Amino acid sequence: MNKRVTQTSYAVRGRVLDASMRIQARMADGHKYPFDQIIALNIGNPQALEQPPLTFNRQVLSLCMYPQLLDTAPPGLFDPEAVERARKYVKCTSGGMGVYTNSQGMQSVREEVAAFIAQRDGHPARADRVFLTNGASEGVKLLMQCMLREMADGHADGMLTPIPQYPLYSATLTLLGGRLVPYHLVEGRNWGVSIEELRESLAVARDDDGVCVRGICIINPGNPTGSVLTEEQIADIIRLAVEENLVVIADEVYQANVWQQERPFVSFKKVACDLGYTAEPGDHRLQLVSFHSTSKGYMGECGVRGGYMELHGISDDIKAQLYKLASLSLCSNTAGQVMMGLMVNPPKEGDKSHALFAKERDAILDSMFRRAKLLSDALNTLEGVSCNSVDGALYAFPTITLSKKARDIAKERGIPADEYYCLEMLERAGIIFVPGSGFGQAHGTYHFRTTFLPPENKFPIMLERIKAGHASFMKDHA
Amino acid sequence: MNKRVTQTSYAVRGRVLDASMRIQARMADGHKYPFDQIIALNIGNPQALEQPPLTFNRQVLSLCMYPQLLDTAPPGLFDPEAVERARKYVKCTSGGMGVYTNSQGMQSVREEVAAFIAQRDGHPARADRVFLTNGASEGVKLLMQCMLREMADGHADGMLTPIPQYPLYSATLTLLGGRLVPYHLVEGRNWGVSIEELRESLAVARDDDGVCVRGICIINPGNPTGSVLTEEQIADIIRLAVEENLVVIADEVYQANVWQQERPFVSFKKVACDLGYTAEPGDHRLQLVSFHSTSKGYMGECGVRGGYMELHGISDDIKAQLYKLASLSLCSNTAGQVMMGLMVNPPKEGDKSHALFAKERDAILDSMFRRAKLLSDALNTLEGVSCNSVDGALYAFPTITLSKKARDIAKERGIPADEYYCLEMLERAGIIFVPGSGFGQAHGTYHFRTTFLPPENKFPIMLERIKAGHASFMKDHA
Repeated sequence: MNKRVTQTSYAVRGRVLDASMRIQARMADGHKYPFDQIIALNIGNPQALEQPPLTFNRQVLSLCMYPQLLDTAPPGLFDPEAVERARKYVKCTSGGMGVYTNSQGMQSVREEVAAFIAQRDGHPARADRVFLTNGASEGVKLLMQCMLREMADGHADGMLTPIPQYPLYSATLTLLGGRLVPYHLVEGRNWGVSIEELRESLAVARDDDGVCVRGICIINPGNPTGSVLTEEQIADIIRLAVEENLVVIADEVYQANVWQQERPFVSFKKVACDLGYTAEPGDHRLQLVSFHSTSKGYMGECGVRGGYMELHGISDDIKAQLYKLASLSLCSNTAGQVMMGLMVNPPKEGDKSHALFAKERDAILDSMFRRAKLLSDALNTLEGVSCNSVDGALYAFPTITLSKKARDIAKERGIPADEYYCLEMLERAGIIFVPGSGFGQAHGTYHFRTTFLPPENKFPIMLERIKAGHASFMKDHA
Repeated sequence: MNKRVTQTSYAVRGRVLDASMRIQARMADGHKYPFDQIIALNIGNPQALEQPPLTFNRQVLSLCMYPQLLDTAPPGLFDPEAVERARKYVKCTSGGMGVYTNSQGMQSVREEVAAFIAQRDGHPARADRVFLTNGASEGVKLLMQCMLREMADGHADGMLTPIPQYPLYSATLTLLGGRLVPYHLVEGRNWGVSIEELRESLAVARDDDGVCVRGICIINPGNPTGSVLTEEQIADIIRLAVEENLVVIADEVYQANVWQQERPFVSFKKVACDLGYTAEPGDHRLQLVSFHSTSKGYMGECGVRGGYMELHGISDDIKAQLYKLASLSLCSNTAGQVMMGLMVNPPKEGDKSHALFAKERDAILDSMFRRAKLLSDALNTLEGVSCNSVDGALYAFPTITLSKKARDIAKERGIPADEYYCLEMLERAGIIFVPGSGFGQAHGTYHFRTTFLPPENKFPIMLERIKAGHASFMKDHA
């Protein structure tokens, strides 16, 4: 078997989740646990936790899948604006949802994406620079496959990657034989980026380890950290990237999940253009690729696997290579493409469909806002646990102080101490957290990642179970 | 840029398609061509060429996308059996189409796939051995990524691959740094497999080139060849694979596209089990992975990107690695998963929905049957062109004798002679063929691949244009 494959790890669906499946099977067999149901806080999968999909979006997709309804559905069953929108998508594929589209995705959806970006940033965007992908993950993998070279002489291409990071990046680097060049986010400064730290990591990788560092990955808002970068931090990163010739991979899939006012989401593309890196033809001073997804935000449409990447300052040659790689999979799925169109081009004020859309959207965002605060507050009441405010994204990433006893038991079992904690929280409280070791953390520190996605009416019992489980763990490991 | 990426080629969407897009743009600008529309015969994309989707399938998907319809749609708008089926799919994901499913795919769909395989082959199949993927391509890439090792010492892992082949295999091998070990299909014997040829290729690769040959890929029914293997040929391949310890990759995505009676489709799994390789726990004598897709057959649901792979005789360790790789993409898209369920579990005789389903299915298959014959007959009337009967799949792969003049011009332009022919056919007749050189062919021979997917009422004009364009090419290159 390929060693890179066996060496790859992906914590979000790792040992703790496996253990939860075993417990679920045992519960089904009548075994008793101190809880009646496991609460999965390991993954940002909102609709699995009762978040409803948006009516307008699903009406459009339903109509696209069975276009006869465009003419035969009785009045009142579908919003007329949904009918109109579905008619447009079906027409523009010349054949509907069943066709292979252009390998970059449907032209009309890419135009909607470009219009969204232009409107968001106040700078122009072009449909021919947009690729529609199966979720953002597929785009990240395509791009990294192009960027990272196989080095025959033992040297390696590398990528500056935040610690902690979403393990898609570490896993993809391992699979491609690339080197993860870590830069530590600063927990004491709301998990912000330190330019000094970046410079130092870069110098160590280049000078001491002989790594050819090709790019820098930034996740903003942060996964797993829940942080949001300031515009100044973004500008600093861009200047560094230009200076050091690093491709910027901006993972901005949580851009609609921001839970405070001081640091609104600002895109790398906007800051780049504001700084004058407008990527006119032939200008490759800054190479930036930004990612977005239908899976997060207020839609949480994970299952349809919709995503896009926008190329900025990337040469036509590289774009052609990306296109070729994309064409090996023929195209991304059409439901995901349409969902992306709907995400970037929702009902507008003045549209008849806007009222219901806005009501559904705001209900979800308002509730997420409350839940983010509820969860971080509760975590901060736990003995030995400390949590930054959840400024964005769908996660908290608290630090936990583990006793020598806990660390010794973990060591005996050959697992990281935070994984031991998470396994114990699963057994004691029926709660699935993801160990911080799966994301990376400063040496000697322990963390776990948790979502706040269960519905609000389940929060009291969930928080109760977390508190009780944690207290019992701490007592037994004093 | 990664060299493996730049070295990769994928002919189905290569230079001829690029040229067709330029012509289309020029036509839109008012340039005159000897045709009013380009006919795309380069890709098996049936619904782009007016093949309608099946009503039952699309009703179910439409209902799954907007489950409110399950209760609110007026009687008569949807088939009650479609409503029932949609209810099942929505329920089994516990959250509907918007959730990340198990990374292997929904349990209930995998059970439908296992039941289909068991029924087809008369041998048991297990849902836990099935992975649902975005089309079959994604599964092929996952598997090959696991199989092919990075060899530090300059040696390479390789895979026996038919020539001609579908370029997904050559491209994936290039990307993974694996070696394509060619075995030539025998054009004079209906593009059949020769075991002697296989043994010789294997010996040359192992002994002369030092390649560690890990597996053998078979496409049956054949792409691009349109061939169907006999049961005896399949048995011979399986015996060889066991003897030589080769993983069998059985690409069987065209299994429902068979256009003659003498050689019905028989799966590798069935022949393997008939031979006693039943893959009891711990029995890994034969390692076989079979692929299927929603994109072909009579459904032609390319855009939803549905596919599966079934593991047979593959160890739990390797399965765990495949699962990990799949989990990096979280899951395949839910519309594709549901479509796969519908494909393997269509309305049955006795169901109320069966009559319409069978009528739609048979209309498509009967017409394909006629078109396959029409096309190969027409090709055989062309000067210098010879075509095997199209026994299966969606393609003909005729051989063409090109004059010295044609070959010299191609050489001057630095392109393969069959690519030159295809580019000329595009200019002269507005027809998109794919050059044989993109699939591989015996040295000194020239071919092209063509589908027969345009609707029957367009066949007279299409065949007329092919004949006229070809005649004019031959005249100018005599």
